[in-house]
Amino acid sequence: MIEERIKQTIRDIYDFPKPGIIFKDISTIFLDAALCKSIVKSFVDKIRHLEPDAIVGLESRGFLLGPSIAMELGIPFVLIRKEGKLPGKCIHETYDLEYGTATIEIQENALASGKKVIIHDDLLATGGTVLAASNLLHKLNIEVVGYAFIIELSALLGRAKLEENKTPVISLASYT
Amino acid sequence: MIEERIKQTIRDIYDFPKPGIIFKDISTIFLDAALCKSIVKSFVDKIRHLEPDAIVGLESRGFLLGPSIAMELGIPFVLIRKEGKLPGKCIHETYDLEYGTATIEIQENALASGKKVIIHDDLLATGGTVLAASNLLHKLNIEVVGYAFIIELSALLGRAKLEENKTPVISLASYT
Repeated sequence: MIEERIKQTIRDIYDFPKPGIIFKDISTIFLDAALCKSIVKSFVDKIRHLEPDAIVGLESRGFLLGPSIAMELGIPFVLIRKEGKLPGKCIHETYDLEYGTATIEIQENALASGKKVIIHDDLLATGGTVLAASNLLHKLNIEVVGYAFIIELSALLGRAKLEENKTPVISLASYT
Repeated sequence: MIEERIKQTIRDIYDFPKPGIIFKDISTIFLDAALCKSIVKSFVDKIRHLEPDAIVGLESRGFLLGPSIAMELGIPFVLIRKEGKLPGKCIHETYDLEYGTATIEIQENALASGKKVIIHDDLLATGGTVLAASNLLHKLNIEVVGYAFIIELSALLGRAKLEENKTPVISLASYT
């Protein structure tokens, strides 16, 4: 099972990025090429029926597998980046963090109005960044038909936020 | 030819990130899944004979194709990130920018001493970041057996810096 393989590979790092936090280190997944291929295949199997026109990946860790998933489906991969990184005309969305705010951007002409996309990131926690990405896409009249994460921290309740519009949330490994 | 296809796809964005700079926007490459696959295949064909033990990718745009190249070769992909992003014990390297400095990091136990790697990023300009990545790997006694870039801005003379130790520099599309 892919979930067990992922859980056997990911490491818990204590007190990162600050004391009291147990951080799920996904970087070890990328040391195992066979596991990466299985993860890409699992995503493809779970999202193909949603018929996305593109995969949208969030900087930076959503860039690691997003392009592979898109290549496997034969569809575009679109980047959402932190403010000031993308050239050309962009639209942006600002959202709240625990302390302060953050802004993400997408190129205005990356995708045509009316397209359907899957948003991909490595990890679903509170869902704040992903929800901001979803709002950003709505501004371009792009429909989010699903969310795809490697892992999900279910205690942080991100899923409930994302499922509000009945949009399917896919995660390959869930931690309580 | 892959070089022509890349050049037809990349866009010039004027005055980004500041006035007077013509920025090569590679994001359009990722909208074309077939081109992405051809780029990955080209990299694999050009680096396989160097027998790397791993691909090392630089945050963030080296994350876009690095894992696909590693998966295709069946070898690990290792992340080099900006300071403070990687959990666990890291070593770091600080290097000069036009104004100020930047610091990059790698996890100390990501690769065993003596391994051979290819460093991958999207673009070779002055070579400053890539050279810092190379120095970082040398601290772990890891040998850089090649560099692989999608595009190269040859007027900025990064290649000469990287080739000082006779290490091969591969770029798929070169701009003068």
